[in-house]
Amino acid sequence: MKAVRFTAWKTFPTIEEVERPKPGPGEVLLKIAGAGACHSDVAIFEQFDESMGDQLAPSYTLGHENSGWVEELGEGVTGVNVGDAYLSYGPIGCGQCPACSRGQDTYCYNAAEQPYLATGLGRDGGMAEYMTVPARNLVPLGDADPVAAAPLSDAGLTPYHAIKLALPKLQGGGKSVLVIGLGGLGQIAVQILTAITGATVYATDMKPEAMAEAEKSGAIPVEGGEGQADRVRELTGGQGVDAVFDFVGITPTIKVAQQVIARRGRITIVGVAGQPTSWDFYSNPYEAELTNTYWGTIEELYEVVALYRAGKISPSVKTYSMDQALQAYHDLHDGKLSGRAVVTPHA
Amino acid sequence: MKAVRFTAWKTFPTIEEVERPKPGPGEVLLKIAGAGACHSDVAIFEQFDESMGDQLAPSYTLGHENSGWVEELGEGVTGVNVGDAYLSYGPIGCGQCPACSRGQDTYCYNAAEQPYLATGLGRDGGMAEYMTVPARNLVPLGDADPVAAAPLSDAGLTPYHAIKLALPKLQGGGKSVLVIGLGGLGQIAVQILTAITGATVYATDMKPEAMAEAEKSGAIPVEGGEGQADRVRELTGGQGVDAVFDFVGITPTIKVAQQVIARRGRITIVGVAGQPTSWDFYSNPYEAELTNTYWGTIEELYEVVALYRAGKISPSVKTYSMDQALQAYHDLHDGKLSGRAVVTPHA
Amino acid sequence: MKAVRFTAWKTFPTIEEVERPKPGPGEVLLKIAGAGACHSDVAIFEQFDESMGDQLAPSYTLGHENSGWVEELGEGVTGVNVGDAYLSYGPIGCGQCPACSRGQDTYCYNAAEQPYLATGLGRDGGMAEYMTVPARNLVPLGDADPVAAAPLSDAGLTPYHAIKLALPKLQGGGKSVLVIGLGGLGQIAVQILTAITGATVYATDMKPEAMAEAEKSGAIPVEGGEGQADRVRELTGGQGVDAVFDFVGITPTIKVAQQVIARRGRITIVGVAGQPTSWDFYSNPYEAELTNTYWGTIEELYEVVALYRAGKISPSVKTYSMDQALQAYHDLHDGKLSGRAVVTPHA
Amino acid sequence: MKAVRFTAWKTFPTIEEVERPKPGPGEVLLKIAGAGACHSDVAIFEQFDESMGDQLAPSYTLGHENSGWVEELGEGVTGVNVGDAYLSYGPIGCGQCPACSRGQDTYCYNAAEQPYLATGLGRDGGMAEYMTVPARNLVPLGDADPVAAAPLSDAGLTPYHAIKLALPKLQGGGKSVLVIGLGGLGQIAVQILTAITGATVYATDMKPEAMAEAEKSGAIPVEGGEGQADRVRELTGGQGVDAVFDFVGITPTIKVAQQVIARRGRITIVGVAGQPTSWDFYSNPYEAELTNTYWGTIEELYEVVALYRAGKISPSVKTYSMDQALQAYHDLHDGKLSGRAVVTPHA
Repeated sequence: MKAVRFTAWKTFPTIEEVERPKPGPGEVLLKIAGAGACHSDVAIFEQFDESMGDQLAPSYTLGHENSGWVEELGEGVTGVNVGDAYLSYGPIGCGQCPACSRGQDTYCYNAAEQPYLATGLGRDGGMAEYMTVPARNLVPLGDADPVAAAPLSDAGLTPYHAIKLALPKLQGGGKSVLVIGLGGLGQIAVQILTAITGATVYATDMKPEAMAEAEKSGAIPVEGGEGQADRVRELTGGQGVDAVFDFVGITPTIKVAQQVIARRGRITIVGVAGQPTSWDFYSNPYEAELTNTYWGTIEELYEVVALYRAGKISPSVKTYSMDQALQAYHDLHDGKLSGRAVVTPHA
Repeated sequence: MKAVRFTAWKTFPTIEEVERPKPGPGEVLLKIAGAGACHSDVAIFEQFDESMGDQLAPSYTLGHENSGWVEELGEGVTGVNVGDAYLSYGPIGCGQCPACSRGQDTYCYNAAEQPYLATGLGRDGGMAEYMTVPARNLVPLGDADPVAAAPLSDAGLTPYHAIKLALPKLQGGGKSVLVIGLGGLGQIAVQILTAITGATVYATDMKPEAMAEAEKSGAIPVEGGEGQADRVRELTGGQGVDAVFDFVGITPTIKVAQQVIARRGRITIVGVAGQPTSWDFYSNPYEAELTNTYWGTIEELYEVVALYRAGKISPSVKTYSMDQALQAYHDLHDGKLSGRAVVTPHA
Repeated sequence: MKAVRFTAWKTFPTIEEVERPKPGPGEVLLKIAGAGACHSDVAIFEQFDESMGDQLAPSYTLGHENSGWVEELGEGVTGVNVGDAYLSYGPIGCGQCPACSRGQDTYCYNAAEQPYLATGLGRDGGMAEYMTVPARNLVPLGDADPVAAAPLSDAGLTPYHAIKLALPKLQGGGKSVLVIGLGGLGQIAVQILTAITGATVYATDMKPEAMAEAEKSGAIPVEGGEGQADRVRELTGGQGVDAVFDFVGITPTIKVAQQVIARRGRITIVGVAGQPTSWDFYSNPYEAELTNTYWGTIEELYEVVALYRAGKISPSVKTYSMDQALQAYHDLHDGKLSGRAVVTPHA
Repeated sequence: MKAVRFTAWKTFPTIEEVERPKPGPGEVLLKIAGAGACHSDVAIFEQFDESMGDQLAPSYTLGHENSGWVEELGEGVTGVNVGDAYLSYGPIGCGQCPACSRGQDTYCYNAAEQPYLATGLGRDGGMAEYMTVPARNLVPLGDADPVAAAPLSDAGLTPYHAIKLALPKLQGGGKSVLVIGLGGLGQIAVQILTAITGATVYATDMKPEAMAEAEKSGAIPVEGGEGQADRVRELTGGQGVDAVFDFVGITPTIKVAQQVIARRGRITIVGVAGQPTSWDFYSNPYEAELTNTYWGTIEELYEVVALYRAGKISPSVKTYSMDQALQAYHDLHDGKLSGRAVVTPHA
């Protein structure tokens, strides 16, 4: 079968013919419906090197946002139906620690000893005709479109997890939130916030069309640049917003977050740009929390799928055939995409 | 000035001419914009007697859901603007206990020693041209209509408080809730749930027109009678609903709640009918909580007002002039009202 | 190998020679260190019949509170060390639903379709020389005594789970709690409450020696019988206790719980006696929750083990050799035990 | 009467003869039992100047940690007993906003428009024979020693509030916490953590005697300096601590906090040194929160008093007569104090 392979550090992936895998005990073989292309993939094959350690080292098939139909069951698997469509939870931990036991493999206590992080991150992923995955990582999609669902396993789950942890700040009347950075994750964040909270959602991005799209999802666009923090303060009667989700993570966006957050609010930096900010006792309102976040839990993925099946979130996707798969990464790299690139090997 | 007075146990109220009150230290004089008529008033003058104790004993002016314009400030009052419109939080506790300190006078530790429960409940209320009230009980209405706001101080705050305590059960994708009893409080409950959660809201009542109104607010009507619990179970994929709010409180409605609640869900009986149910270890799903509720906190009233000012909740009201005030109670008693009866002494 | 077998409804178990099992994919073979005898076992072989359905139907090896040393790894198992001591989480769900994904197999969405409930509850349990169990159900014991640990997997986990859900009521200064019923679970409940909260722990039982033991763990004994509720009210300055854990579940104990609970408190009925109480809007203080509970999660079992390894909880056990195993059930049935009976096949 | 007066910016306070105040409406006159001297007082009279604005501008009587006996009731005050001992909550907000309504005057929405921040912070405080204070700010002490209680209103309440917000991180078995800086607040923090959580409490300070005192309260001392973070990581099995409370707030202490915090943990900077740290997406474990804190709520002060009355926290104090009051500030300034300096005008 064909697969998009990451073959060497600092090397653009290639499409190769590889053998169709066999599911091991507790695993299934998934016939891929959709595999999302993610910015972190680009970082892996463009920026990373051996200093990252073995877990992400080539070679393997890319693709950590995957959906598909179960084709074959490995030994000991029950409760999964061959032919049914599922979304795949990417992370795979040790399975034997408190974090894994609660379905949060991202925070596996023994992560450092694992051979890989996730399907598509060290272990063969979904940019191929077939992929194996532990049965416990599957979330049933019912009759919902599996192709548009694919990005939900990361671009949906990551903001959902961040939002869930901030929900106590957003419960009730008169709450507000600012979303910074309206790419794939930011747009879904706006949709989730509109769907599950009553908060007034402000949204900002440097691209007017991204703000227009967020507005369609129910957000109030706030122009960036000079005076932005003041505008947000004014819109919120001086109190600031109860939560900020920053999908960029550069110094200027974090600074805005620190300036507009309300007392007792919560700033979550989701974007991995990794630029620094300065923090001291007086640099932000009392009890405002500054934190980061990473992916989410299996149970949360069930909840994301519930929102998707109810039509409350709908990722914007652009599909690519298996043969066009590398083009997806080129387009992603070149910033040509507004929605999420999804490779559909069987379309 | 004219006032609707409760003058003796088991006696219908009368309109009397009384002296306009003077605000004491820390109080204001409120020129009444609206005073809601509540079922509990009817219980007080029709059903209660001396066995209820001194706090609710006649005579006093009725009306515990009040809004108005500040007319005069008592000694020591600052931060309140004469002429501005406010909603009035009814309960008045000792002011010197943990519950009062958090603005939850309903659960005053020294309630038994207080001379009254609330404005309109033992202390002169808002069914009059003017009323005095502690300044701390006021929530500013800004430029929102104070007349339609009046019922929010009870018919809005009571469901809001009950819902807030159940919010952890309703956070996230795939949640659902059932509202039983679609009178004044039940309708506002549907509006609040739709506004601040992403849960699917089911609603039921014996009156078709009440269900139709709830449907307009975003609820999915569920017919009552034989098989109702099964219908709800089916609608929720067998899991049941994550929360039930029962605004009736009779044995059959509580039974339905026990039958449709999901594991780890929460049943809140809001209606004060006081009929019993039987509960044992096996009578309801694991970890489903059964509880009651009573009014709310000052801070929650701020949040209710925020929803009202944002147009997210809008009580349906029928207004009565001061001279028609007794008619409001007659109509309430006779079940002739669909919305809330509000007396408007200065309209 | 020898095993304690439940062979027919309404039939006392027998010790039989059975084949040593082989671990399937994802499972391990556990050499049993300790297997606790539980009252629910007695209910199963004395009271239940075919009306209970297939899941608990004989025949199988009893024992759902198990610890031991890993003897052999099934296919695909990593991260578990042969020879190391582990405590075993009993419940086994579908592994493919939100509840199982969070390690709460007790509330498996597909429980009705599973062939059994847990090891020792429909599936061969630990009252034998060896038992197979899914690797994910193991919690490492380090160098702590595995024999005394065995009861923790039920008699420790069940109260721990109930207490964790009530912790928001018990956080901070001036809180109090009442434990009703000081058998195996109740004694551990007292130890847990003393270890992880600052609440004043009141404890009651009809046996003076049980109260004396609870007192050693830090509880304040409260005599039962006439006036008990008044005594608790008085001890708490009239406010009542913030939580009640009732390990009996008969009508009189639930009634006491309803009488002594504080406003906003939480009553958890843990005992499965199943007797009814009457509940109505006025039968208990405002916002007091009435609920039940069932076992716990894998992650919580890690936390229970942490308390055990730190010496903060120490179940009182009486050990029985494999040959005396039936005597353990006789003693349990006859009420001759103060601590937990643990069968130790390899001692 | 005599009072310790702050008379001009950058000027050491003086003892002056002033008139005994009269309680206004809603206030009481408190005969001072104890008035704690706080580092922030020293900052006010040594470091601050007109740039701080009017609220803290001289002249006024110092002392924001006060206890005493009610001497006289202002107009409209009920529920307070003349002669009884009370602890005084310092902050005084507008009384007409959501924060004040919940007894959290520290976060008053209209703080900027208030004439002062608290008794002793802009308004005459407790370093005098008598002080007026709003009746709602009083928390009854019963028969507990009011002198040693005085510091609790700040040095007790501030850590208590910070700890309460972090409690969800510290609930259950196997949790741990690090307290940095074992002065007055840090020592009480250790006592509170030991009293109301089951967490393992690590504590560090540059003074060996401070560590020894913390050890007496149940903490495990951890030496500072080179390798400290590694030591803490090792003590916690590599996971790090679930919460850090830093009572210093300089760059090195915040850095240690960032290095030792566990994933999903919470760092609270309580100390007001105000030195900066650098924060970026990769600078601390996932979901670890970084926040600050400020004083607490009236209800929390009730809970602090409950711990004090139960003997679970006991501030170490050194008393000074009214005539020695300035010496208290000298000793504080010179770092000569191990416990809290408390002025006792009537001892």
